Amino acid sequence: MSEENKAIAAAFYQKCLNEGDVETAFRLYAGTTYRQHNPLIEDGMEGVRKFVAWIRENHPDARGEVKNIFSDGDYVILHSHWHGLSDNPRGEAVADIFRLQNGKVVEHWDVIQSIPEIAANNNTMF
Amino acid sequence: MSEENKAIAAAFYQKCLNEGDVETAFRLYAGTTYRQHNPLIEDGMEGVRKFVAWIRENHPDARGEVKNIFSDGDYVILHSHWHGLSDNPRGEAVADIFRLQNGKVVEHWDVIQSIPEIAANNNTMF
Repeated sequence: MSEENKAIAAAFYQKCLNEGDVETAFRLYAGTTYRQHNPLIEDGMEGVRKFVAWIRENHPDARGEVKNIFSDGDYVILHSHWHGLSDNPRGEAVADIFRLQNGKVVEHWDVIQSIPEIAANNNTMF
Repeated sequence: MSEENKAIAAAFYQKCLNEGDVETAFRLYAGTTYRQHNPLIEDGMEGVRKFVAWIRENHPDARGEVKNIFSDGDYVILHSHWHGLSDNPRGEAVADIFRLQNGKVVEHWDVIQSIPEIAANNNTMF
């Protein structure tokens, strides 16, 4: 189930954010409700649709590269490197957490950090 | 194994960050190497020791409250709410990822975001 959930959350992420097709993403992969914890985004599909439209208009080259994906029961966690979402040439590190119910994405949390220019180690944030 | 890894990573986190006892944390729970991906922290125990000393000196009331913990194979992910780490009264949302090897913590990534004052939904970041 966990491996299946990983595939579902990854496909939802890709379809919404990198392909910008929020309606198809929700039709295929999301539940009837979608509880949003990103403070910039309203609840539900409409919130994601508006957010993705804003990204596409203001940062048309923005892309998230999923570096690692984890799952535990109903939860899937993605660790990603975003480019083009801001003026920072190094991009952002992002952790997304999705909760699934019966194989459908129903809740989302994330944490986003701008990658600093100087680092105290040589390991990158990924 | 995953449940055991959760307990080990949670104990390491608590001992290092909330109790400030980095040496005991590393002696009990960390491997012989510790690869650091937080750009503010140097590799190894010494990096964590310096970082925690800085927190304790500058933000003695800083505390991380673990809201959720996930594991997948060798990886454990903690989703936490930090208070007192900055001037932001709402605190920070943090995602930590630990990799374990034979039950010892050997690698760490994190993503940290200041919680904004205004949110587009009523669900909090947790």
